[in-house]
This record gives sequence, structure tokens and C-alpha cells, in this order.
Amino acid sequence: MVSESPWKRKYYSERFEIIEINNAGFCFGVKRATKLAFEATAQKSGRVFTIGPLIHNPQVVKRLNEKGLAVIENLDSISRGTLLVRSHGLHPKIIDQAVTKGLEVIDATCPFVKKAQSFARSLKEKGYQLVILGEKNHPEVQGIMGYSGKDTMVVGDYSELSLYKIKKKVGIVAQTTQTYQNLSSLVSRLVPEVRELKVYNTICDATLIRQKESRLLAEEVELMLVVGGKNSGNTNRLYKICKQVEPKTYLIEPADEINPCWFSGISRIGVTSGASTPDWIIDGVIKRLKSIN
Amino acid sequence: MVSESPWKRKYYSERFEIIEINNAGFCFGVKRATKLAFEATAQKSGRVFTIGPLIHNPQVVKRLNEKGLAVIENLDSISRGTLLVRSHGLHPKIIDQAVTKGLEVIDATCPFVKKAQSFARSLKEKGYQLVILGEKNHPEVQGIMGYSGKDTMVVGDYSELSLYKIKKKVGIVAQTTQTYQNLSSLVSRLVPEVRELKVYNTICDATLIRQKESRLLAEEVELMLVVGGKNSGNTNRLYKICKQVEPKTYLIEPADEINPCWFSGISRIGVTSGASTPDWIIDGVIKRLKSIN
Repeated sequence: MVSESPWKRKYYSERFEIIEINNAGFCFGVKRATKLAFEATAQKSGRVFTIGPLIHNPQVVKRLNEKGLAVIENLDSISRGTLLVRSHGLHPKIIDQAVTKGLEVIDATCPFVKKAQSFARSLKEKGYQLVILGEKNHPEVQGIMGYSGKDTMVVGDYSELSLYKIKKKVGIVAQTTQTYQNLSSLVSRLVPEVRELKVYNTICDATLIRQKESRLLAEEVELMLVVGGKNSGNTNRLYKICKQVEPKTYLIEPADEINPCWFSGISRIGVTSGASTPDWIIDGVIKRLKSIN
Repeated sequence: MVSESPWKRKYYSERFEIIEINNAGFCFGVKRATKLAFEATAQKSGRVFTIGPLIHNPQVVKRLNEKGLAVIENLDSISRGTLLVRSHGLHPKIIDQAVTKGLEVIDATCPFVKKAQSFARSLKEKGYQLVILGEKNHPEVQGIMGYSGKDTMVVGDYSELSLYKIKKKVGIVAQTTQTYQNLSSLVSRLVPEVRELKVYNTICDATLIRQKESRLLAEEVELMLVVGGKNSGNTNRLYKICKQVEPKTYLIEPADEINPCWFSGISRIGVTSGASTPDWIIDGVIKRLKSIN
């Protein structure tokens, strides 16, 4: 049995009420990148590869690999074939290198990430010192850094700001999957230190809505499952958000990580998922929950 | 006896230790406006007037009035003479009106206020919806509004934001004497609502330093006196800041408002003052404190 509300849907088993947010599963950018990847592996005769995984979901990357999409580390030993630019984008130097080598390039960068890259370049050109809110080692941030100046600062949150290195004219872009609380705190901390601050709120709407709805859902259930890649930044942030509201929150990748012992005394379960979690994995989780007696 | 430290000076009487911040008294803009006003009354043969008081200090305005500077409400009945634009600036329409009437105009607008006006105009020209952080009825804010668009919003703090009227591209300027806590909170509240936010931190350095030092001083004394015009926005904010730290804080205008009953059991007094408080009034307060036995 399924009942729906504007932002959530409910399933009932003999033992549980299971509530899932509607905005679960693949976001627009991941959907687009995955579609481009499946098309490329079907249409291109030569080798098709990504530098780093196309999206942060091992199960999907494995399926694509079976279709012929190789994940490589760099272009050093590559002389022909098609480079599929991953959803997180790439440093422009790598794309230049691919073009110089005569490789075909298909750009599967999420359009929202593209915007963040373009804002970073524009801020640099207009003389702003760039502060990127994001995970320093995340490929999306690495890509954005390729468009920004030498004085760029990357911070995970406001506490990482080196205030003594801050100039008077600062621009901010955020990794598209950051939380807006994190962005607000950073901006708030910077305001008294600068004379001019230009903020591009590059957090994508899908992320904002997903975070908000996951938090609301966590408030009304007794246990929360966050489904997604453990290497996925946005999934980990969802986990953190839900855990703050409902301490009984678990991050699971495939359904078989579910431990029936978690559910003792529980009758209402919430399910949310990261932007790179495919529907078939979420469906598997719902099915597994329904089977628990 | 006077002893000095980088940001404060101490006076001793038989009964009290009196600590005053060095950055007290007239700020740069008020000093400049007052100088221009005294020069104008001495040099101009015709009538010299301001629309509204030159600065927010009744004692100084009275002295200037004795020298021949008249305070008027509008230009309707004026056909000749010199308009001295007050330190807070004026709506550009009034200055145009003066020019059209053939009046001489001396601009005593504080250069920092001028900057805020010019940023407001530039934001309007670049298609930003303007949010002004300030007191709606304060002459400085009224002046800045003359340079901004019809969709401008003036808010005293973030709680006054009408979020449903907020557009996606917003620019912020602040009344130069606002607190940066207030500006930070406003910016922080706006970030999740917009896509692009350009903040000009137009709070003047002198204000920032004075607020910071007054707060520090209030922490180390047993009673705090804030000296300045009761109609002065920045003096009232200093009072609020000090009162939060030291509940025994009093706002006084001239020295004779000091009530000796306040000092029972008190041995250490702090003195700060608004940006439009002249030295002779502060000196009077110190003298009065020294005379209390």
C-alpha cells in the first residue's frame, strides 16, 4: 500500500510505516551524466573513460564499467578514445590536455557545477579573492579551483578561515551540495572582515529541498535510513543533518547492509537518499524493510 | 593624573578610576562637517542653512546657530543663500532643487556616507534589489534611498525582512553606524533565499572600532557612561552595546545630567561617546566626575 503527500510517500508493512521523501534518488545532474554515459558506451566504437568515477555511487559505476566505461586516474597513457567529463567537472587543464591529444570530449559536468565554475572565473576576472565553501579534496571543488585565482581559499566551514589572509574584496561560491547553514555561517563570519563581498549561492535547489525535507522527515520518525555512496559528499551531509535530529540514523549503501537488530521497538521509519543513489537501490531498501518481520 | 594605553586613557580622582576610550568624540565625518559649517558661517555673506541639524548633537547645533547657521525643514520658502548639506547627506532631489533655485551648495556629507550612496546607485544600475540595513527614518538612510530603486527594502534588522518580496539578486549597504553583528545576521538570513548577494560593508571603521572598544571597556568597569545626543543613532547603539555587558550604563547628553546617586559603591567608571559628541562635552563629563566626592 502506498499513500502520498506533496513531499513524501508512505508504505506500510505488517510491522512498519515507512516514509520516503519524493525528492529521493538521482538529481538532475546525475541523471544527465548517467544518461550521457550509457549513450556513450553504446555509441562510441573506441574506448570511453572518465577520470575518477562518473558519480559517487559504486553500484552505478560498476554497472557502467560492465558496459565498457573505464575509470582512469589521468590521461598520461591515453592517446585515443572518448573522455567523458564526470558530473563533478574537471580541472580545465585536463580538458585542454585531452583536446591537445586529439581525444573526443563529452562534457557530463552537472550544469549547476558549470555555473559555479563560471562564477569563480568571473569573480577572479573582477579582482575578487575567491573563497570556496567545500571539501578541499572533492573533485567538484578541485574542478572549480581550476577557474579561480592563486589567492583562492577553500574552507569546509567558517572556522577554517585564515582571517589574516583575507583581502578586502572577497567572492564566494559553494560546492553545489553544501548546506545553506554552512554557507550562511561563513558569509556571516566574513562580513565584518571585508569591504565588499559577492556571494553566489551555488547550492543547487535539489540539494536544498532534499536537505530540508530529510530534516523534516527525521523529526517525525523513530529511525532514519540515508541511502547512498559512502564516498558521496552530499549523502554524508544528509546523514549528518538527519543524525542531529534523530540519533538513530544509519547510512547504508546497498539494502543488504540493513541490520534487523536496529528496528527493535521501532514502528515508523524514514528513508532518504543522496543525489547519486539510483532508484533501484532505494527500491531494494524499501523491499528489504517490508520483508522484516 | 592621566595614564594611557593604546586604546584607552585613565584619570584618577580621590574616589574614582575613570577610563575613557581614546577613539571618543567627533569622528572624521563629523569633524569635517563641523569645520565646513564654521567656515561657511564666517565666510558667506548671505544666509547659510542646513535641512535638519548638521550633526546629531544639540549643543553643537546650538553653537552653530549662534554663529548664524539656520536649521530649516525644506527649501520651499528659500530663494537665496547657501545650503550646507548635512553630514548624513540628503536626498539628491533636494540638492537638485537647491541648484535649480540658484542656491550655493556646500557638501558636508560624510565621505563614508557618500560611498554608501554611490554603492546604492551602482547596485541599482546593475539590477540588484537593494536592502538597506538601517533606521528607516534616519536622515542618512533617507539620503541613501534617493539613490536606490523602487524595490528597495529598509530593515532595522533581519527580522524585518519581508522574504516574499525578496528577489534572487540582492545588494546590501548599511547605514555607516550600524553594528556589524546586525549586518552579519542580516546577510546570513538572506543567503539561503537568493542566488546572488553583493554586500558592501559600509559600516565605517571608526564606528567599528568605537563599538568594539566600548564593549571591552564596559567589561572592565562597574559603571558606564555613554556621552552623546539622544537623537543620535550611533550613540544609542553604543548605549545598547554597553548596557548588554554592564547593566549600570547611562546615556547622558551634557555633564549636568550626571546623578551622583548612581555612584554608590562604584570605584571604576568607563566613559565612551558618540561620533557627534564634541571634546568639550566629554571634558565636561570627566571634570564633573572628578568633582564628585
